Amino acid sequence: MKELFFNYIQNLQFTITSELERIDGKAKFQKDEWQRDGGGGGLTMVIENGNVFEKGGVNISQVYGDLPESMQKALNVSAGKFFACGLSMVIHPKSPKVPTTHANWRYFEMYDEAGNIVDQWFGGGQDLTPYYLDEEDAVHWHSVCKRVCDEHHPEFYTKYKEECDAYFWNSHREEARGLGGLFFDYLKPTDEFDVNFWYDFVTAVGGSFLEAYLPIVEKHKHETYTDAERQWQEIRRGRYVEFNLIHDRGTLFGLKTNGRIESILMSLPPHVQWHYDYKPQAGSEEEKLLRVLENPKDWV
Amino acid sequence: MKELFFNYIQNLQFTITSELERIDGKAKFQKDEWQRDGGGGGLTMVIENGNVFEKGGVNISQVYGDLPESMQKALNVSAGKFFACGLSMVIHPKSPKVPTTHANWRYFEMYDEAGNIVDQWFGGGQDLTPYYLDEEDAVHWHSVCKRVCDEHHPEFYTKYKEECDAYFWNSHREEARGLGGLFFDYLKPTDEFDVNFWYDFVTAVGGSFLEAYLPIVEKHKHETYTDAERQWQEIRRGRYVEFNLIHDRGTLFGLKTNGRIESILMSLPPHVQWHYDYKPQAGSEEEKLLRVLENPKDWV
Repeated sequence: MKELFFNYIQNLQFTITSELERIDGKAKFQKDEWQRDGGGGGLTMVIENGNVFEKGGVNISQVYGDLPESMQKALNVSAGKFFACGLSMVIHPKSPKVPTTHANWRYFEMYDEAGNIVDQWFGGGQDLTPYYLDEEDAVHWHSVCKRVCDEHHPEFYTKYKEECDAYFWNSHREEARGLGGLFFDYLKPTDEFDVNFWYDFVTAVGGSFLEAYLPIVEKHKHETYTDAERQWQEIRRGRYVEFNLIHDRGTLFGLKTNGRIESILMSLPPHVQWHYDYKPQAGSEEEKLLRVLENPKDWV
Repeated sequence: MKELFFNYIQNLQFTITSELERIDGKAKFQKDEWQRDGGGGGLTMVIENGNVFEKGGVNISQVYGDLPESMQKALNVSAGKFFACGLSMVIHPKSPKVPTTHANWRYFEMYDEAGNIVDQWFGGGQDLTPYYLDEEDAVHWHSVCKRVCDEHHPEFYTKYKEECDAYFWNSHREEARGLGGLFFDYLKPTDEFDVNFWYDFVTAVGGSFLEAYLPIVEKHKHETYTDAERQWQEIRRGRYVEFNLIHDRGTLFGLKTNGRIESILMSLPPHVQWHYDYKPQAGSEEEKLLRVLENPKDWV
């Protein structure tokens, strides 16, 4: 399973970066291969200063070996050996009219002293963070999420959509990071769902990402925008930074377990602003977005 | 003591904001008074878009009442009533040639059911975060810190300078946030040092702040700078954000205990950049700063 899934995310990284380069038309992803002390490594691919994408990263990693004490604590498991691999991605477009997106799909195995698998699970998800609300985009994004879930289980979309809203909640602001999508973790084999079932599900979700995101980029990438709209985007990106550094379990896990800093913090947006007590005008498009972030909606 | 110290920080807020306005010559501090549910409140004073200061806040607060469960956890104490007051300040100048500074001086009291003080302590400190290294500035800053410490105890400067270097350590980057200064916490009355001794010490440190900072601002505020130097400042400000959101106990304490978000996050810089794996050129002024941040020095 670990080879199967790592092979899958290697292919997915190639597919996603190729398609994003095609849409951007100017910038190319730069590759940065790295090794991990203790076992494994990764391939970080970063695009910067493109026509469409101001900064984005699509990373894969495959790490294994003795479970460091910091990871035992973070995962709440006892000593042993582990394997983890995953793809994680954050895309920050230049235009405030094109939403930011984040996605991650990952697989863990834990072993006993004899090398037998004692635990294994998938996790991941994808979410959309626009700066202006386009309800049609929201419906499209969630429809793709729902369709791919429905193909595996009638209850998955509702469940993982709710988990996404709960997870990407900037609790200190009482608002969502974005419009959500799917979030799932600890998908473990049971009598009902074996490990192949979860593999099929997670890879189907990963495989649907471009179908969910690219039409939204294509629709908005040529729209004009003002300096004020760009400023709003940079202020909202501040909330993105706050979420990632204060709340995001993946980021904190990486920092606590001596992950590769540049690959972890590649998620941070390129240009960001913080103003004191900034509030958009009543009735503005900016405020319309806030109202939806404060009260996550059902889009499909 | 609580009235004495609160009176002191009220006056200090007035003195510091008046002097910073005078130096800026354009922007004025805006006042924002707020109340806390459960007892107390504060006065947040913010300066934005000045000639010299791009964004800065000088806040005082005085909060009291039943110790919320979140604060009991954060402070590792059991239930009861509490009082806390303090001044906290972060100043982000516009020019990359003028250092950012942060300072905080605070006082806590804890009470038993009958209202007797069962614990009381002072905390605080001040530190300097330049974007370009000027050794003369560093020596001046630390000399003022040392002189005020020496007036109270011959070992304080060494002790609190070291605590400052240890506290403002961006461990995930293996570098200091800035050039340090003083940091002290849990200054409690003992047989050797009574509460008045600590009051005299902390207020003397607070009273020396302007003498430490203003000459540095005056010296550099008219220097020219390039777009590339400004970009470097914004990238370094990213490290400031990382420290405050990932490591700073004061910020995390505020967020966990439902503090007033805008007053807590007023510390974040106005314009910030993150680039993937940014490294200054070998031998450059930018790299010279990094070398000192990686290996905190004794300046006096």
